[in-house]
Formats: sequence, C-alpha cells, structure tokens
Amino acid sequence: MIRHTVCFTLVHEAGSAEEVAFLTEGAADLAAIPGVHDFEVARQVGKGPHLFQFAMSFDGRAEYDAYNVHPVHQEFVATRWATEVADFTEFDFVPYERIS
Amino acid sequence: MIRHTVCFTLVHEAGSAEEVAFLTEGAADLAAIPGVHDFEVARQVGKGPHLFQFAMSFDGRAEYDAYNVHPVHQEFVATRWATEVADFTEFDFVPYERIS
Repeated sequence: MIRHTVCFTLVHEAGSAEEVAFLTEGAADLAAIPGVHDFEVARQVGKGPHLFQFAMSFDGRAEYDAYNVHPVHQEFVATRWATEVADFTEFDFVPYERIS
Repeated sequence: MIRHTVCFTLVHEAGSAEEVAFLTEGAADLAAIPGVHDFEVARQVGKGPHLFQFAMSFDGRAEYDAYNVHPVHQEFVATRWATEVADFTEFDFVPYERIS
C-alpha cells in the first residue's frame, strides 16, 4: 500500500468559487481514476506551509504508475494543477518496517 | 477530528538501532498518551524532504491540547525530539468543508 499525499496552496482567493471547484470537482476527477482508493480532501490547520491536502491510496506501485500516466490525471496536471496551484509539497508513505 | 502529522528526518544512520528505537519505542510512548488514536508510523518514499512520519488523530481540539501539555509528550519533545530529529514539517488536517 502506498499513501500518496500532496499538500498545496491555491492561487484562488479563500472561499472563492474557483477554490471550491478545485477541491470538489477537481478532486472528484482524480478520485475516479482506476486504482485510486480512500481519496480524501483536507484543510490544513496546523503549522505547515500549505492550506489543503489531497490524499489517496494505491495497492502498489503498478496502480500508482498507471494513475500517473492516466489521461485524466495528465490533463488535470497540465490544465488545472499547472495554473491553479501556487505551491505544493508531495509526500508518499508506506507503513514503517524495520530496515535492519 | 484532527489528524496531526509530522514528517521528519532523524540524525541517526539509516537502519541504526537508534533509528529503530525512535520509530518503535519512541512512537509507542506517544501513542499511549490519552486522547491519541490511529497512531501510524510511516516511511516517506516520495519526493518530500523527510524520511518518516508520525500521524495520529484526536477527536477535537481539547484532546489535542491535552496531548501537547501531557508530561510524557513534553518529556519526549525535550529529550528525544530535540536531540534526535534533524528536520521536520508539521501538518494538521481536518476534513474539507466548503467554506462559501
């Protein structure tokens, strides 16, 4: 299992229709891509530098790779992400295992 | 519900006994503090700047505040976190709600 998370800040004004659209319709487009599960949209309320988060899980690397090259994801990145996101940090997590 | 997450890198050598101790015994100390649930330790395998993550949930702000001032947490921060963590970023999340 891989938990893919992206924390980001949008170029849109807080509470604007454009912000809502990105966090609802935009998220829904990504969540519908095959292999994506447990897609969550969150608001960041702590000390971190970004205001929102998309998080989603994949069963493994094959599903994650398929998502990355899926046309819906590529179009989302090229059109919405490239123009609406001001700054972001991407973290991917796997459950911890002792490595020695 | 508040999901408190901290992504961090340790001063310890990868795979060292000190690294394992922080990620197991250290994590267990925090996870046992009242009000903490769904405590997870993860390895970061993406593009983010840190190698590990602790994540935990609180039912609300009161439980989170109680954790912050709990003696076990304060001792952990003063002794282990202050000396074993090289760098970190803290993000706290709440489920997204439309704000307009």
